Amino acid sequence: MTHWKLTLAYNGSGFHGWQVQPGLTTVQGTLANALFRLTGERVLPQGSGRTDTGVHALGQVASFPLAAPLPPGNLQRALNRVLPAGVRVLTTEIVSSDFHARHSARGKLYEYRIFERRVRAGETGAVHERICSPFLAPFVWDCRWPLDLESMQEASAFLLGTQDFSAMAASSRSNEDGEPNPVKTIYRADWAREEDLAIFRVHGSGFLHHMVRNLVGTLVDIGRGSLALMDLPRILASRNRSQAGPTAPASGLYLVEVFYDQSKVGPELGDAALVEAAL
Amino acid sequence: MTHWKLTLAYNGSGFHGWQVQPGLTTVQGTLANALFRLTGERVLPQGSGRTDTGVHALGQVASFPLAAPLPPGNLQRALNRVLPAGVRVLTTEIVSSDFHARHSARGKLYEYRIFERRVRAGETGAVHERICSPFLAPFVWDCRWPLDLESMQEASAFLLGTQDFSAMAASSRSNEDGEPNPVKTIYRADWAREEDLAIFRVHGSGFLHHMVRNLVGTLVDIGRGSLALMDLPRILASRNRSQAGPTAPASGLYLVEVFYDQSKVGPELGDAALVEAAL
Repeated sequence: MTHWKLTLAYNGSGFHGWQVQPGLTTVQGTLANALFRLTGERVLPQGSGRTDTGVHALGQVASFPLAAPLPPGNLQRALNRVLPAGVRVLTTEIVSSDFHARHSARGKLYEYRIFERRVRAGETGAVHERICSPFLAPFVWDCRWPLDLESMQEASAFLLGTQDFSAMAASSRSNEDGEPNPVKTIYRADWAREEDLAIFRVHGSGFLHHMVRNLVGTLVDIGRGSLALMDLPRILASRNRSQAGPTAPASGLYLVEVFYDQSKVGPELGDAALVEAAL
Repeated sequence: MTHWKLTLAYNGSGFHGWQVQPGLTTVQGTLANALFRLTGERVLPQGSGRTDTGVHALGQVASFPLAAPLPPGNLQRALNRVLPAGVRVLTTEIVSSDFHARHSARGKLYEYRIFERRVRAGETGAVHERICSPFLAPFVWDCRWPLDLESMQEASAFLLGTQDFSAMAASSRSNEDGEPNPVKTIYRADWAREEDLAIFRVHGSGFLHHMVRNLVGTLVDIGRGSLALMDLPRILASRNRSQAGPTAPASGLYLVEVFYDQSKVGPELGDAALVEAAL
């Protein structure tokens, strides 16, 4: 039995999220079907966590065992031939049997992309909003308010460190990691302007269901002036979801990277360069 | 009664093409519904031509009359508020009553985008194919053959001028412009490399149904070596669809611009700068 770790990129707009659901196209189900087509083995790949409908991944991680012996590069090429174009296998590695995409994860990096309709001056001095391209729309939040990114950056500092994020959990309190502990550590939370986008990057030990989208919704409320900077520590301390801002749309959210202890990775096929060499 | 000319961009992956069809989401039907919501008037906007399911537009043109008096900038903003994010109104102009998006059109520019899986060298000198991003896939043809773009460029010269393009028509012989004349004039047909893409641009007096996609399929057959350069004039002369290459996928095709005689445009609100001034 060989234990596999895959990194995957997917376009969330074509899937009803990660987790397999009867009658719906999900990433987990699509990957399971592709593995069955290739090997005849019925395995359910474990993800580092669920992603909701419309949420994208640049580096989701999945793990599963296979009886069939396959060189890593062959598995990658074969999967990319049978998978739909909306999911791509970026790397394949053989790992030790105690590696588990969710249980072994030590942290995650998410990105949230907002299209800023910043005004531009017309020829006569008249101003109007930029139009969000219909080709970009599935991959951003087309946010209709002008945003004060400096305030949002300042507010993001309140997220750093270890605290109870119950105020930022989904109303249902379901946890993406299947564990109810609302105490998480945030290592990094910052905003950057890149062309027409405002991009939020947040790296934490783990995230509650909807937590990044609720953080973004709350920070946007600060950026548009409907909440004050100092409302954020008060909201966090309340541990009350109803105090926070709205849930930002799924379309702007990307799971960028999942971090693991190096010791959990098996025969050192962990980086893309080595995977390339195996092809 | 005011006569309107709109330019539209749309993401074809969310629509069953331009033309209204019962029970299906089409661009024409979506625009008609938005106009009804805004004005209470039932009009069917006329397009410069149909686009098929999955085909994109950067500058489709639609025309229709409205009884409601509206400043052009207001109509644009109001439509963009009620339309889904996959269609955007780029410009709005008031035109004379004899303007018709299809009948007045004098030419069109199409673009076709191919993702080239060109090999790159890994760290150890091993090579592998680039992976087409799942975010790019709906907007290109992820073509699995290495392409000799120089041959394709050379072959494209055979398309220039006025000739019978029956060999490049859809098998059904249905014509995008609703007219069966297979004689068209091509003013420009060339290939360019832009980052990982090979882009074909073709400007003609008009195009038969599937004509651009059949041209691209045939040129790709030349670029991958399964047809010779000199096969193209022979195929064109045959006027026989079965001689040409396959129909390239819809996802790579963009209607970029529709050209009109300037005299057909009414009160000179034709360019984006003036439309901006009206906002």
